[in-house]
Order: sequence, then structure tokens, then C-alpha cells
Amino acid sequence: MNIELINTGTELLLGSTLNTHQQWIGQQLAALGLELARQVAVPDTADAIQDAVRDAMGRADFILTTGGLGPTSDDVTREKIAELLGLRLCREARIEAGIQRFFEERRRSMPAQVLIQAQVPEGAQVLENAHGTAPGLAIPLPPKPGSTLKAPRLLVMLPGPPRELRPMFTQHVLPLLRQLAPSQDQYARRILRTTGVGESVIAEKIEPALRDGLQAGLEIGYCAHTGAVDVRLIARGPQAHAILAQAETTVREFMGEAIYGENDDRLEAQVVQLLTAARQTVALAESCTGGFITHRLTNIPGASAVVLAGAVTYSNTSKTIFAHVDPAILQSFGAVSPETATAMAEGIRRALQADYGIGVTGIAGPSGGTEQKPVGTVYIALAQADGTKVHSSINRYERESFKAITSQQALDLIRRALLASRPRP
Amino acid sequence: MNIELINTGTELLLGSTLNTHQQWIGQQLAALGLELARQVAVPDTADAIQDAVRDAMGRADFILTTGGLGPTSDDVTREKIAELLGLRLCREARIEAGIQRFFEERRRSMPAQVLIQAQVPEGAQVLENAHGTAPGLAIPLPPKPGSTLKAPRLLVMLPGPPRELRPMFTQHVLPLLRQLAPSQDQYARRILRTTGVGESVIAEKIEPALRDGLQAGLEIGYCAHTGAVDVRLIARGPQAHAILAQAETTVREFMGEAIYGENDDRLEAQVVQLLTAARQTVALAESCTGGFITHRLTNIPGASAVVLAGAVTYSNTSKTIFAHVDPAILQSFGAVSPETATAMAEGIRRALQADYGIGVTGIAGPSGGTEQKPVGTVYIALAQADGTKVHSSINRYERESFKAITSQQALDLIRRALLASRPRP
Repeated sequence: MNIELINTGTELLLGSTLNTHQQWIGQQLAALGLELARQVAVPDTADAIQDAVRDAMGRADFILTTGGLGPTSDDVTREKIAELLGLRLCREARIEAGIQRFFEERRRSMPAQVLIQAQVPEGAQVLENAHGTAPGLAIPLPPKPGSTLKAPRLLVMLPGPPRELRPMFTQHVLPLLRQLAPSQDQYARRILRTTGVGESVIAEKIEPALRDGLQAGLEIGYCAHTGAVDVRLIARGPQAHAILAQAETTVREFMGEAIYGENDDRLEAQVVQLLTAARQTVALAESCTGGFITHRLTNIPGASAVVLAGAVTYSNTSKTIFAHVDPAILQSFGAVSPETATAMAEGIRRALQADYGIGVTGIAGPSGGTEQKPVGTVYIALAQADGTKVHSSINRYERESFKAITSQQALDLIRRALLASRPRP
Repeated sequence: MNIELINTGTELLLGSTLNTHQQWIGQQLAALGLELARQVAVPDTADAIQDAVRDAMGRADFILTTGGLGPTSDDVTREKIAELLGLRLCREARIEAGIQRFFEERRRSMPAQVLIQAQVPEGAQVLENAHGTAPGLAIPLPPKPGSTLKAPRLLVMLPGPPRELRPMFTQHVLPLLRQLAPSQDQYARRILRTTGVGESVIAEKIEPALRDGLQAGLEIGYCAHTGAVDVRLIARGPQAHAILAQAETTVREFMGEAIYGENDDRLEAQVVQLLTAARQTVALAESCTGGFITHRLTNIPGASAVVLAGAVTYSNTSKTIFAHVDPAILQSFGAVSPETATAMAEGIRRALQADYGIGVTGIAGPSGGTEQKPVGTVYIALAQADGTKVHSSINRYERESFKAITSQQALDLIRRALLASRPRP
């Protein structure tokens, strides 16, 4: 099945916006064993959009467009595609009512112009948008000669904002693709997510042990993120599931607790889940990470039951006020020291009567480094009932990567402590 | 001048790699007043690459390809484009010598396969690569009928790794573009970044007033982000700068303080800058935003001088411990109430002796809503010496968008207060 993606938006071509749709949609399709055959970005002009759709119709079985369904004058995708396909646009009362409700629920007044989003090309299926006012549209296309598809080929339009597009893709587009696509039985894929080990080290460890699988057609891929590496295993053919299961067992054996999850699992979700299962709580005192660790944890529904509080203690005063750090410790060892990290973790744990306390202090940069403590120096302390341990490292990256890697290390520290304290079966 | 970008690489279509080339190259061109007319990503297969180049040759004056010039089996761009254009490949001794030197300098042994990178299509100009072994190539193309270019149109191939591509683009590709392009005096662009107003409301306000500009060829675009809308103004032709200046004045007049910056400006950077200029400080007590506002502020270098502390006060206890919220207030009005937001802002301000205190409380969801206070309800209080104001809204979005929009509102609240308190000139 030939799938093509057309991203509309002048902001993409000007580089004002990064095209994250391509990556996300590519990943979603790959998870089903499908591959994008081509992706095109064009500006918000009638000619550019119509040319791109006309070209794609000559090749594709499934065309997905993103963007240009909103209410402003540069939102022309719906109208120009309907024009190209010779379809009339009709206002649909049910969508109008939904748009009116959207504004009412948010107690905002509704500009008349937004009702243009209720226009539907004749014969199109309306795909509901739970997070915005522009619905998606699916239009059946005339068949290509010699097609073996199970249903008519389709052109699907989705709105541009990711928080609208992503749930709509999952909820509406994937089922439409499944209707068209041939069976996916002979495809198996698993992503194992690791942290704390570099990709070349992982490759050196696992590849010799995977030799049999590789000879049987196993594909291994690595994707390095900030402070994490995903190991991707893909197998095809009648033995796909058996080959994959064997490979996964091998990788788990070699990587052990460095694996924190699969597919879309998030490290912070793992920590919240382990805390919840153990009925334990955590409180945080963050200096150089500026609240990012607490932010990540509180992104997870259910965090409020286990994350008691976080304090961003940038100044010495706030370290004392919030985390009860003895000024004498700050004086003797400095704000960036294992002693201060320890005092922060223990102080915040005591103040909130939490089971775990985390204290993080370091030098994010770009300035503030010394020869002994260069930019990137960081101390992460984890306090629990039986004592406090301190992780130290030099995370020499620009400011936001520094925060990302340091938060990763802190979350991994408590994750491993929670794993170690689980009752043995 | 019609410029098209072709990104080759199966990893792009699988979503393993984010296409940052498109954004970066788009920005480089926009800075010169040039615009990409189309961007295409195709897998590393002979047919896909040749189809994409053939299509582009029917339209473009300048074609730029990225990727596929390396030594491995999936690097086929050079060979397949030469084949399509009917050009022989010849080994160039000077490049071979350069590749050998590259390996010698790094004391690595050289696999014979890497010498494939010394192959040059006849008639091509070689573009030196200071950071890798694959040089770039520029091939003159046969003219399009009716072209007004100052030199033959070109196809340029660059290698995929960003640290190789970027300096090569600046050093070699920009001069080639300047040779071809007509004068760039006739182009003007401005992005005005706004927050707090929806895109359809902005359009309703400004478009009637911009009628003259629109008739003179002004282009307006809107790009909606979470809690923010960029308004893009572009003008071309001999009057470009005058048309743009007039349009910008009009938009600024209508949107006033809703405009927080231009081009790449960030709202949090604006707040840190205003605080720094006013020599004032802020302390935050965040409940439902879970540290995200403090995280955003502390991403900005220099934040440590003006952001005294942030407290993530999820639990009632922590609201009392950190922000000195009177338990009677929590009891009478509930944790999510204007009264609690006010007490948080005033308490944290007093505790840190800050000039501004911010208190945020709300229901992020997915659960926890009631009929009176549905999921999405949020109260943001800003305390200062002369009193406290409370912003309330219903941010009915999934959890992370909720945090993003609420943080945007909180940052905007203090930004407007800082603007209002500036000494009048």
C-alpha cells in the first residue's frame, strides 16, 4: 500500500515551525508495519496544495494531508482539495453545533468566521476532533488501475495542531488504514527503551548474542535520545513472532534494569507507577534543573498521590527556607557539592514526611563554572529511610539538554531504588 | 526563483529521525528573502530518488538534495541522479587524496568502500566538506523555457549529517544562490508573536484595517501554537519595506500588548528580561502546573538572578508548608479557588521577600472535576506590593496542553504587570 503525506503550511517552508508531524506519523505507521512512500511540504497556496494532491493521486493509495482546516484566510486546504476533486462544500449542522458548544464550554465568544469549519465536501466522512473546532475529513478517491486494496483508496485531511491531530490519527485514521491494508500477521516489532548506557556500548553487548536472529532476518536499530537509547527489533515473515521473542529475551538478559520500558513508555510514568504500587511518596528539591523533574513527574496522571511537593531552590536562602539546608553546609562546601545535595534531599524528605527525598544541585551554565567544578557538574542525592546516596556526573551540554539529562539521571536513580526495594517473588 | 528541497533517507519516513534540515534550510533562505517552494522526503531507493528529482526538474530553478552521499550500501543519491541526468561518474584523484588524509589524520584504517565518495558526475562542481569525507556536488541543469535567471539553474547535492551540511550550505550553497537570484531588496518579512487572543479573533480585528496593504500584495499568515498565535506579514516588490512597515504599525496598534515579541522571541525570555531590567524578582507556588512555569523561566540564562524560588505545592500540606496558606482558607474555599491562589501568591512572595508572587491552582484532569469546577478550571494569582489580581479560565485540554496553556497565561500576567509598571518615557 502506497501512503503519501502532504504537510501544508508556509511556516514549514520558512522554517518557523519544525515538521514534527512527519516523524510522529512515520512512527505510527511503522508500528503497524507500514511505511510512508513520500512526504511533501507545500505552502498554504491554492496552486501548491492542488499540485501536490494531483501528483500524489497519480501514485498513492492513501493520501494524508495536515493543516489548513482552520478558520483564517490562509486555511484553504479543505476548499482547494474539494475544488480539485470537483466536490461541492455543504455546511453540516451537527458540526456547527459542536463548534458552538466548544466556545460555550470555554465561556468564550464565537467569531462567525469559525463556522467555515463546518463545511464538508459531498461524500466525505467527518472525523471528529475532540480537542479543537476543525473536524477531519475522509474522501474516497477513484480507484487506480490494477489495485488490490480491500476498500476504495482515500484522501484524509487532518488539522495541523499536534494535540488535535495525534488523537484523531489514532482514533480515526488507523482504523481506516486497517480497512485498506493487507494483513499484518507477518510483522513483529518491539522497541525496548533504555537509559544510562550509550548506543555503541549496547550494540557491542547485544549484537554478538543476536547473531542467529540476524541471520534469520532480524533487523536491529538504535535511536539515541537525550539520556536514553531505544533499541528497535523488527522481524518479518512466517517466523516473525518467534524470532522477535527470542531476540527480546536476549536483549533483556544483557541489558537488565537499564531497560525501563517498551514502545511509548516514559521513564517518569515508570517512577509514578512504582511509587504507586509501593504506596510510597517523594518530595524534591531542585536547583539546577529548575523544576523540570517535578514537571515531568506531574505530567503523569496519578502523580498527585505520590509526588508530595517539589521546591525549586535556586538561591541559597530558598535552599534553607524550603529544604532546611544548614547555612553552615552551604558555607563550608558550597551550593554545588555532594554535601548540599544530601542536605537538600534529606531536608525536603523530612519537611514533607516523604518516603524518598531528591536533591539536585549543579552548574547548568553557560557561566558559573570553575576549574574544580566545571560547567555541567551535577550532584543528585536520593534520601530514604536507610540512608542517602549521591550520584555525580559532568553533564556538559547546553542548558536545556543539561536539564533533560540530569532529570533522566535523577528519575533513574529513584527507579532503581524502587526496583531494588520490591519484595522478591 | 523556485527552490525545491529533496531530503533522501528511509529513516525520515520511518520517523526514526526528525527532519531538522527542512527547518534550518528554510530559515537560512528566509533570511535572504528566498522561500522554499516545496520540500519532499523520499526513501533511499533508486526509483524514489529519481522520481522526486524528475518531478522537481519540471518546476524548479534550484534543486537541493540532502543525504545519500556516504559510503554504505544505502547511499545511492549521487549514482542515481547521475544516471537520471545521463552523466558519467569519474573518480577524482584530488578527492581520493583528501579522503585518505582524513583517515590518516584520525589514525583510523580506511575501508576501500569509502573511495566511492570520490566519484564525480561529469561537469559537476565539487563542494568541499570540511567535516566529513563526502564532498557536495553542484550540477548545471538545462534551462527552463522563459527563465529570467542570471546563470544556469542548478542541482546541488549535500551530505546528510547536520554538522557537515550546515557549514557547506553557508560556505558553498549561499554564494551559488546569490549568483542566480534576482536582487533581494524587494522582500520584507516580520513575524509578530501574540498570546491571549485566538487566531480568528486576531484576523477579525486586523484584516479590515490591512485592506490597503492586502490590495498592494501584503501576505498575512497565522500560526497557532499552544496558547500563542504568530502573525506573519510578508511584502514583495519595490514597495515591500514600506508596505510591511505600514502593516506592522497597524497590527501593533490593534493588538497592543498582546504582542510579546518578534521572530524567535520566547515569552519566558521576555519575562526574565523585563524582571532584569526592572531589577525585580519573582517567586512561584505552582500546583496544577507542577513546576512547568518555573522550568520555562529557568531555561533562560540569567534566570537565577530574578527567579528566587518555585514551589510545587500539589498537596494541601505543601501549600501550607511552602506558601504559608492558612488551612482555614483551604477548608472554606477549597484548594482550587481564587482565595487559595491568592494566598499561595501572597504567601510565597512574603516567604522569599520577592517583588512578585505567582500562585497557580486548578484541575489538570483527567479526573477531579465537579459541575461547578469542571476539569480545566484554573486560578492564577499575581501578588505585588500594591495588591493581588486573579486570572481565571477554563483550560479544557489534555494534561500537558493544560499545563502549557496555563503556564502561558501566568507568564503573560506577570509580563503585562511588568509592562504596566515601567516608567513612562
